[in-house]
Amino acid sequence: MATAHGGVDGQIGEGVVAILDDNRLFPTDPNVRALARDLYEGVKALPIISPHGHTDPRWFAENVAFSDPAQLFVTPDHYVFRMLHSQGIALESLGVPRVDGGETEQDPRKIWSLFASNYHLFRGTPSRIWVDHALQEVFGVTMRLSAQTADAIYDRIDDQLKQEAFRPRALFERFNIEAISTTERAVDDLRWHRMIRESGWTGKVVTAYRPDAVVDPDFDGFARNVQLMGEMAGEDATTWTGYLAAHRNRRAFFKTFGATSSDHGHPTARTEDLPQAEAAALFDKALQGTCSSEEADRFRGHMITEMARMSLDDGLVLQIHPGSARNHSHDILRRFGRDKGYDIPTRTDYVTALRPLLNAVGGRADLTVILFTLDETSYARELAPLAGVYPALRLGPPWWFHDSYEGMWRFREMTTETAGFYNTVGFNDDTRAFCSIPARHDVARRVDCSFLATLVETGRLGRDEAPEVAHDLSYRLAKQAYRL
Amino acid sequence: MATAHGGVDGQIGEGVVAILDDNRLFPTDPNVRALARDLYEGVKALPIISPHGHTDPRWFAENVAFSDPAQLFVTPDHYVFRMLHSQGIALESLGVPRVDGGETEQDPRKIWSLFASNYHLFRGTPSRIWVDHALQEVFGVTMRLSAQTADAIYDRIDDQLKQEAFRPRALFERFNIEAISTTERAVDDLRWHRMIRESGWTGKVVTAYRPDAVVDPDFDGFARNVQLMGEMAGEDATTWTGYLAAHRNRRAFFKTFGATSSDHGHPTARTEDLPQAEAAALFDKALQGTCSSEEADRFRGHMITEMARMSLDDGLVLQIHPGSARNHSHDILRRFGRDKGYDIPTRTDYVTALRPLLNAVGGRADLTVILFTLDETSYARELAPLAGVYPALRLGPPWWFHDSYEGMWRFREMTTETAGFYNTVGFNDDTRAFCSIPARHDVARRVDCSFLATLVETGRLGRDEAPEVAHDLSYRLAKQAYRL
Amino acid sequence: MATAHGGVDGQIGEGVVAILDDNRLFPTDPNVRALARDLYEGVKALPIISPHGHTDPRWFAENVAFSDPAQLFVTPDHYVFRMLHSQGIALESLGVPRVDGGETEQDPRKIWSLFASNYHLFRGTPSRIWVDHALQEVFGVTMRLSAQTADAIYDRIDDQLKQEAFRPRALFERFNIEAISTTERAVDDLRWHRMIRESGWTGKVVTAYRPDAVVDPDFDGFARNVQLMGEMAGEDATTWTGYLAAHRNRRAFFKTFGATSSDHGHPTARTEDLPQAEAAALFDKALQGTCSSEEADRFRGHMITEMARMSLDDGLVLQIHPGSARNHSHDILRRFGRDKGYDIPTRTDYVTALRPLLNAVGGRADLTVILFTLDETSYARELAPLAGVYPALRLGPPWWFHDSYEGMWRFREMTTETAGFYNTVGFNDDTRAFCSIPARHDVARRVDCSFLATLVETGRLGRDEAPEVAHDLSYRLAKQAYRL
Repeated sequence: MATAHGGVDGQIGEGVVAILDDNRLFPTDPNVRALARDLYEGVKALPIISPHGHTDPRWFAENVAFSDPAQLFVTPDHYVFRMLHSQGIALESLGVPRVDGGETEQDPRKIWSLFASNYHLFRGTPSRIWVDHALQEVFGVTMRLSAQTADAIYDRIDDQLKQEAFRPRALFERFNIEAISTTERAVDDLRWHRMIRESGWTGKVVTAYRPDAVVDPDFDGFARNVQLMGEMAGEDATTWTGYLAAHRNRRAFFKTFGATSSDHGHPTARTEDLPQAEAAALFDKALQGTCSSEEADRFRGHMITEMARMSLDDGLVLQIHPGSARNHSHDILRRFGRDKGYDIPTRTDYVTALRPLLNAVGGRADLTVILFTLDETSYARELAPLAGVYPALRLGPPWWFHDSYEGMWRFREMTTETAGFYNTVGFNDDTRAFCSIPARHDVARRVDCSFLATLVETGRLGRDEAPEVAHDLSYRLAKQAYRL
Repeated sequence: MATAHGGVDGQIGEGVVAILDDNRLFPTDPNVRALARDLYEGVKALPIISPHGHTDPRWFAENVAFSDPAQLFVTPDHYVFRMLHSQGIALESLGVPRVDGGETEQDPRKIWSLFASNYHLFRGTPSRIWVDHALQEVFGVTMRLSAQTADAIYDRIDDQLKQEAFRPRALFERFNIEAISTTERAVDDLRWHRMIRESGWTGKVVTAYRPDAVVDPDFDGFARNVQLMGEMAGEDATTWTGYLAAHRNRRAFFKTFGATSSDHGHPTARTEDLPQAEAAALFDKALQGTCSSEEADRFRGHMITEMARMSLDDGLVLQIHPGSARNHSHDILRRFGRDKGYDIPTRTDYVTALRPLLNAVGGRADLTVILFTLDETSYARELAPLAGVYPALRLGPPWWFHDSYEGMWRFREMTTETAGFYNTVGFNDDTRAFCSIPARHDVARRVDCSFLATLVETGRLGRDEAPEVAHDLSYRLAKQAYRL
Repeated sequence: MATAHGGVDGQIGEGVVAILDDNRLFPTDPNVRALARDLYEGVKALPIISPHGHTDPRWFAENVAFSDPAQLFVTPDHYVFRMLHSQGIALESLGVPRVDGGETEQDPRKIWSLFASNYHLFRGTPSRIWVDHALQEVFGVTMRLSAQTADAIYDRIDDQLKQEAFRPRALFERFNIEAISTTERAVDDLRWHRMIRESGWTGKVVTAYRPDAVVDPDFDGFARNVQLMGEMAGEDATTWTGYLAAHRNRRAFFKTFGATSSDHGHPTARTEDLPQAEAAALFDKALQGTCSSEEADRFRGHMITEMARMSLDDGLVLQIHPGSARNHSHDILRRFGRDKGYDIPTRTDYVTALRPLLNAVGGRADLTVILFTLDETSYARELAPLAGVYPALRLGPPWWFHDSYEGMWRFREMTTETAGFYNTVGFNDDTRAFCSIPARHDVARRVDCSFLATLVETGRLGRDEAPEVAHDLSYRLAKQAYRL
């Protein structure tokens, strides 16, 4: 059956001027919509606090122009290429690099055209909103992306990317980013962060401490990484006490580049609080590569608690991002490597898993542990009840597949009644897609204002209280929780 | 406390003309409702594609009149008799046959009256909508069913059932069914399908390959069934290679009666991709009846992957319907047999369970594997992320207990953002209740149009795009995914 | 950033007269709201049936004035103090008693002030609605609670508490409570219930049989409790048959004080139906304190089935409240004891767990087993399908963390389509916070009326049927299911 995907948006009549609906994501009831819009007007221009994400500090260090529309929107964005791939489009034809260095599509215009011709696949998805937002608000595009408009839009973006105003620092400023955190491995030399600092540019780009490579015995090159960390830290990291000292040293180093947080992403939320002798013995086995899978997991779990104890001293906020089954397809891992859209959420337990950590440090109000989940069933059942009582706990915003309109509604509906607003921490964009940052924060602000308007109109929040909460969710809580 | 269940619907005033609300299942906001209704007008008359279900091909082969209202609406419908039974009504008094052939109610008018007097139990359920729809649209009934109206409605239906226009083929045509699939066991001789074909009637009724009896070592008479399959296929099915060849032969035979799909319903979604020698050894144990429960499960899991490999050759779409704990009550199983409303959904894992299958064939865009679930928690967490990346995977519509207004909303809200619309496959009615088929498709079309209208009015879909998606969800995707 | 938490509600203008929105919890669409309100008008004044809860019978026996606002609203309410504690406020400063008898805040005005100053933490929570309702409707307060209004509100409540009209019996009558059930341990002498009866006061306060202390081998002092139960019952409870006889005797004793139900709260929903010899052997081990953790669990599971069998004789309704991981923080347990907000819901299986019980007695229409859950994922997947077929089963209302606006919506949306309304049992307030009882029933009535209005306006229920269902959900079903 022939279909006519594409064409301009019928909503906006003859003189096409917008691809975004001004009232998008607001409730449909006119009264609630009016209030949501009103609340949104009060927060839409607030600076962006982006306390956790994966942008590349090199962009801001070198400030070189982005290369082309395909590199900006398609090839590195797993949300985008996974959807195209799910309908049978080969990753090679989207320019995704092969592990063996073999041939992939090199012509950005062809990649862009493939994306544009299949843009209907994104109907109803957050990618659609993010891309439309970037096209309209960053690049001034006024036609919906489609096979018909692909070339014209490509040209428009490509032209602009060559201009000074579209370089990373200029966009950073235009996006009104007050602070952004990147994420670096514990053994990173933070050279780009150093270069940013030495450049004299005043954009606030901080790092975050991500020690997977040196806390996960299953990580490729674990022993080598530990060795390297020791060298960087001037400690003998091959002993348990030296290893812990090296972590403390690296954390301090990261803090000199603005770090206010560490980040931990394990397959489960398991934590342990082992006797030091047992932890030391596991560490020795890990270095020798003789940990069983269970022992490796126990060690990872224990290291979360060690990190939390270090946080009590150095003040880094501890983030836990558990529950992704990484690299579900062996074939894709072998041919294209990690982070290729084949990471799938799994059922995640928190109640039992977090008990050792929380019994060790959960009662400390001077510690902040921010929990994320890919398993929404834990919101009302486990996460809100835990964050609603432990002084150290806060709930991170909806993450990854749940960073979306529906995901945000479910998060608020399932956490607010038990954890309130003040055990949450505002929004994280958590992205490596730079141009989607304003879009994502805009979505979060719209949804939160819509949620608040709904509470007011159903008598669950005072009309006078809503603006303050809107401001808290859009700005203050992220800044305060992440100590930025 | 006395209550007055029943009476006619107060909504429609003196001259009662309808028991259905014309605007049923549309959003309440006037703007959104208007758009939903508009979209619905564009799809409501589309032919019905019913690619998976359990209607009896004998109906269309013999074209004999249905016997009476109780047999049409009550006695064979597990949705109906389970609800009545839950409030203490004995299955015997609803005419449900006993395994021992013992006495049950034989008077259809008495059964009908019991149903009618308890019709208030169905308030808020999909059965209520399906029955009301069939009463009004198929039989022209204008009063709500109740103790008071039971006899009059019984007489009206009973009279009509005797008319030519209410025989199976006439209803099939009146229901505007373009194609319907029944489901038959691998060892079925498809005699009714043959009779339909030989009758010259042009209604498209196809079969589907359901091999439980010959792939599940725990199935009653497994070895005997395998033996029989071999005989039917002209293969020595007692050897592993002969057994696989017999499957291929039977699938080819099913294809000559229009089959485009196979169907697999196991307690879990477990799949395996075993070395052939191990599979062959398990098969031998299965034939000898010496499989442990774990071995039987492993064999079933492996056979899914074998079926998928056959699909790569013969093009049958592979459906997986996992996660029902069958025959929860031993007493009911003993007295009334299977399928008596005592099948209860269970928590179902997909991420780990499907990995062997997906690593074997999930990357093949020329294969279609359609996943169903009775565990809605898997929608956003597992199924949408899997279907949103593996080329072979598609998501079946909400199934069984979730084939309902709320079930459909949850399905769209929890799958669309990650899998989009185009990794779903339209609607399945999956029913043996023939008169409910138009009702069920109508519900699905109304809910999908309501969902699309909500997306448009909240700026998540272009107004110009919605009619195309409505058409896709109502018609095209089912036809295309099932290759009908 | 400075914020101005508090102040009066801007909604109600200069002459502040209300802190509650008259239309709270009704849908926002004007038509649906009008119908919801209409339905609510028909049920709002119905008497309260409170068939399960934890109010103190001593209040009604002695009828002594409540001491002060802090003791009424803060110190004993785990919803309230857990939220304050989650933001770093020490339990000591809220007057929560320490196990060691050590110092805690004794000044109720200081505790109240701390609560008031942090009242913004409760925005969007049910506690906010309950407290606001009690402040306005019970104490006539017209200003929102805040640091600014703390003292004035404290004085107003404190003054009133000294008046006769605010004593427990007077409030009981003013709250229009037709019947309330407290919950007592199997070895309770029911002295307060006796005192109520002997006082001649006609308020209907009944007890319920809660035998944890004598059915759970892990319970502190299990053997001593069993011994005591035997003495109270005049049976040798140290033999299995004597133990069962003692239960029967105590149940009969509880019935003389109005009991119509028993209540069982185990970590899981596990049930067993063991051979009597095996049960007896486990009982012996339990008495000797030699049960393994698995054996203790098996014994608890078996006792549910024994209790159900007793219910077949004595007619007590059996309630199951499973799935709470109690005392998550060892430190809080050690310092403050049980019930301090550290009980966290866990994933709970029902399908497998309840099979022994249901196979033993689930088919009996003369038995009522009421299931509760803290795991909402079981609503649509397990509980509604089970209650929608087993004659003995009914679903209790949303419990604990889910006793809230959103929790009630999710409950109705996820259970009604499969279990209908008539396999549910109306509302339980399940509270020890006396003044919140009218508020909680009011919330339930508003949400149910809103749900029904939504069904009517979307064509899923007749307009003429809704008032009857509203009455059933608000009053009749609780009364009937609990045989009150």
